[in-house]
Amino acid sequence: MPLWKIYHPVGAFTREDKQAISEKVTGIYGRVMPKFFVGVIFQEVAEDSFFIGGKPTGNFVRIWIDHIARAFPSDDVSKRFIVKVNELIAPWTKDRGFDWELHIDETPFALWSIQGMFPPREGTPDEQRWIAENRPSPRTHD
Amino acid sequence: MPLWKIYHPVGAFTREDKQAISEKVTGIYGRVMPKFFVGVIFQEVAEDSFFIGGKPTGNFVRIWIDHIARAFPSDDVSKRFIVKVNELIAPWTKDRGFDWELHIDETPFALWSIQGMFPPREGTPDEQRWIAENRPSPRTHD
Amino acid sequence: MPLWKIYHPVGAFTREDKQAISEKVTGIYGRVMPKFFVGVIFQEVAEDSFFIGGKPTGNFVRIWIDHIARAFPSDDVSKRFIVKVNELIAPWTKDRGFDWELHIDETPFALWSIQGMFPPREGTPDEQRWIAENRPSPRTHD
Repeated sequence: MPLWKIYHPVGAFTREDKQAISEKVTGIYGRVMPKFFVGVIFQEVAEDSFFIGGKPTGNFVRIWIDHIARAFPSDDVSKRFIVKVNELIAPWTKDRGFDWELHIDETPFALWSIQGMFPPREGTPDEQRWIAENRPSPRTHD
Repeated sequence: MPLWKIYHPVGAFTREDKQAISEKVTGIYGRVMPKFFVGVIFQEVAEDSFFIGGKPTGNFVRIWIDHIARAFPSDDVSKRFIVKVNELIAPWTKDRGFDWELHIDETPFALWSIQGMFPPREGTPDEQRWIAENRPSPRTHD
Repeated sequence: MPLWKIYHPVGAFTREDKQAISEKVTGIYGRVMPKFFVGVIFQEVAEDSFFIGGKPTGNFVRIWIDHIARAFPSDDVSKRFIVKVNELIAPWTKDRGFDWELHIDETPFALWSIQGMFPPREGTPDEQRWIAENRPSPRTHD
């Protein structure tokens, strides 16, 4: 459901860093949805291809996120979520002296499939099974 | 109109595979809109930069799609479309043992241009001309 | 706020081209918002990974834009903006014989943060300070 795309400077993160970030990110979502919903893609961007305010940057982490499985019910909830995400990624952004920015879009639940299957709606027995088994299986509800 | 971005494991697809996938994808849209509306970009992602559920994956195809020219009129129509897309890409996903996921966003028709021109609205003579000529030309309607 | 992602042929743009494009792009937005809101990422796409209408292309510039800080108030305003953007990028697209296409999505203002801070709302003293200082600082309004 969430797809995270992380644009970062060349060499900014080791394999272990990326593993750790992905685990943290999965952890935020994984309490309320199947863990395998969470996709994270890292992409290096060379300084000559990455511009903030019209100036090349070799120090910027830009995170772009699509939320699919859930839409925030209110600005209060989204605010708490974003504060939490910023805390969680701080060891790899703020604490390393990088500048960073993130934004989230919410895309339609109906326009999404995994392994050719439509993910179950929130709160259904199907969803419980997807969470318990951590893999997709055919949806039994409408 | 549709922009497909396909993230895939390194070496997963040959040039011929990518050509074939693009033709299939263009085929779904090309009956109702100009073929040149369909853009497909492939991007390899190394296993150390691609995480699903917090674990690195060298076996995952993640497809992200923006629809611009058309919005689905109902969940029934979108469901059929997504089922069809999954069938169509099966030779390069399911049948090769890859895991795969796709999601679609719908973005505003008015915020789109090709060669500096605003694409014609659905069902107009301008659109017929764009389809017939398979190239953009100035729009004559409002 | 705006994040521009520019997919382009291998070697299409020099470092100086990219710098100049980024400055032009920043210029359009920078009169009404802090310059550092403007992010531009360039990405080369090889001809065997870039398809338009089912055919490989080594001649296409595809621009994908997310607007976050502002939504267009009307189609008239967005139309003028898009016309202007096309003029502005013409030296690196049309005038070089490239084909090109762009589309914009508008994503939620509330789901965005820079350096862990929520950007100020339009027309607030906080926003004036962000523009004047060209850096983020804590928001003092709700």
